[in-house]
Amino acid sequence: MNRTNRVCALLGMDLPIIQAGMVWCSGWELASAVSGAGALGVLGAGSMYPKVLRDQIEKVKKAVPGKPFAVNVPLLYPAVEEHMASIAELGVPIVFTSAGNPRVWTSYLHERGIKVVHVVSSVKFALKAQDAGVDAVVAEGFEAGGHNGREETTTMCLVPAVSDACDIPVIAAGGLHDGRSILAAMMLGAEAVQLGSRFVATPESSAHRAFKEAVLAAGEGSTSLEMKNITPVRLLHNDFARQVIQAQQSGATDEELHLLLGRGRAKRGMFEGDLTEGELEIGQISAMLDSLEPASDLVRRLAEECRTLGGPALGGRFDF
Amino acid sequence: MNRTNRVCALLGMDLPIIQAGMVWCSGWELASAVSGAGALGVLGAGSMYPKVLRDQIEKVKKAVPGKPFAVNVPLLYPAVEEHMASIAELGVPIVFTSAGNPRVWTSYLHERGIKVVHVVSSVKFALKAQDAGVDAVVAEGFEAGGHNGREETTTMCLVPAVSDACDIPVIAAGGLHDGRSILAAMMLGAEAVQLGSRFVATPESSAHRAFKEAVLAAGEGSTSLEMKNITPVRLLHNDFARQVIQAQQSGATDEELHLLLGRGRAKRGMFEGDLTEGELEIGQISAMLDSLEPASDLVRRLAEECRTLGGPALGGRFDF
Repeated sequence: MNRTNRVCALLGMDLPIIQAGMVWCSGWELASAVSGAGALGVLGAGSMYPKVLRDQIEKVKKAVPGKPFAVNVPLLYPAVEEHMASIAELGVPIVFTSAGNPRVWTSYLHERGIKVVHVVSSVKFALKAQDAGVDAVVAEGFEAGGHNGREETTTMCLVPAVSDACDIPVIAAGGLHDGRSILAAMMLGAEAVQLGSRFVATPESSAHRAFKEAVLAAGEGSTSLEMKNITPVRLLHNDFARQVIQAQQSGATDEELHLLLGRGRAKRGMFEGDLTEGELEIGQISAMLDSLEPASDLVRRLAEECRTLGGPALGGRFDF
Repeated sequence: MNRTNRVCALLGMDLPIIQAGMVWCSGWELASAVSGAGALGVLGAGSMYPKVLRDQIEKVKKAVPGKPFAVNVPLLYPAVEEHMASIAELGVPIVFTSAGNPRVWTSYLHERGIKVVHVVSSVKFALKAQDAGVDAVVAEGFEAGGHNGREETTTMCLVPAVSDACDIPVIAAGGLHDGRSILAAMMLGAEAVQLGSRFVATPESSAHRAFKEAVLAAGEGSTSLEMKNITPVRLLHNDFARQVIQAQQSGATDEELHLLLGRGRAKRGMFEGDLTEGELEIGQISAMLDSLEPASDLVRRLAEECRTLGGPALGGRFDF
């Protein structure tokens, strides 16, 4: 464990690099590979039935015994109580919460010795999370994939603002994919980083092969933040996304958009590989990804790039 | 002049810091103060009649003799030919072009010994500008104020992509306001930076006092990119911006939006201080600005912050 970095000391990793917990894309194989390489692997519980999550937790524990790992729980998930009970019972050391009020579960988790990190997209919510007693926040910028904030604040603007406002450590997310961007985020005040899209583009991600290929094929302007009046989400442009954009432009009501979205589209797109009608969530940085890379190689490369480019100028933040 | 930095060596400054040329906000007082402090001051010609621009150029030359300065010319400006003739005649050493095809004027300017920098918001346009022979590009992210790209690519995603694609130097813009963000941009591959909003919040900016106060009062989510189907522009939310947002949401046509925008709104808002009906253009980073700072103090503080935080780890990019 790296004790000079506050996030590493808190969560127990060697490297201040976190793989985002993502619906349909981050199961036990990805989380284990990442944690095994010295970073932090995270299961995305938002797409798992309670029974599936239990099974996935057991598999990570077996694959990388003694290594830290986490579960990401969107707090609006219907079976959140069952998830939290499994997490406590099975000894998960860290929970990332998102999309909900951090006050509701933080004490429960802390009483069971579990660290809590909350994902935010604004200073306002970062301060609420800090007040709720969470151990750290992820400050996630507009360029990130999936669900996002209404303020549309980018990583470049969000990270310094949240770092200035909070005493607890800040983990940057959104638009990060290589050593340069990791160090840039740390220069802005982050003490660790969370990468999502880059980890979708690994063989270990549970995303469908066809979705991964679509991610690698993405270029400039291939994603945009849509459904801003309901729940803002960054989508990869496909037939479904174009239907959403068109509906919005012709003044569709929230109800009409809900109806268009329907149910199960994210699974259909990202897990089952329906690139036409499925919902495909990925970050802007997909434009820079052009090949799959095994997760452990990726973690080692990121660390090496940081060591080469960084060093003393970052005030010891990346000395390892 | 700093010869170890490619942008400084090209344009002749001591510091790789550029004040953006902005309509209604950057006249001779601001440009002179910035150039006088060792950075690069830029006149925003997009809001000037030909006669006004000539007068402004003469005033900068008189205020900071021998110092480099530039003029920003939006290439769609109606009187672009008169502007270019004045620039050549009066010996302006550098032109920043934007909003148009860089191929049209680059040879004309180069034949007269004038350096050309083109502002882009995508890799595609950066490569077109490089092919057109410009000397450097400004890669401006989604978070920047004023007119912007349709791809909505943020500074964090845009700067590494443009840096990888281009051989000519890349100047980062969008979301930059302090030493941390300048160094972050350089870590991403930029060799210099351009700051806009931060320089609006100076006593020397020609913006109306009421607009400056509105900029300082801006918070998270106070700006957004609007009129995406016409010409995307980041607006500070006021009555006018809310009318635009409402019109878009109820499916207004491009023609209806043009009609709503009308003429002269930018002048009315930023120069005349009509905070209700005027068009107010500013970047997301306005949320972090809380006081006016004299431009020369600002330049010195930015340089000092970079020296303190940066150094050898940036590969000599910020050694001065």
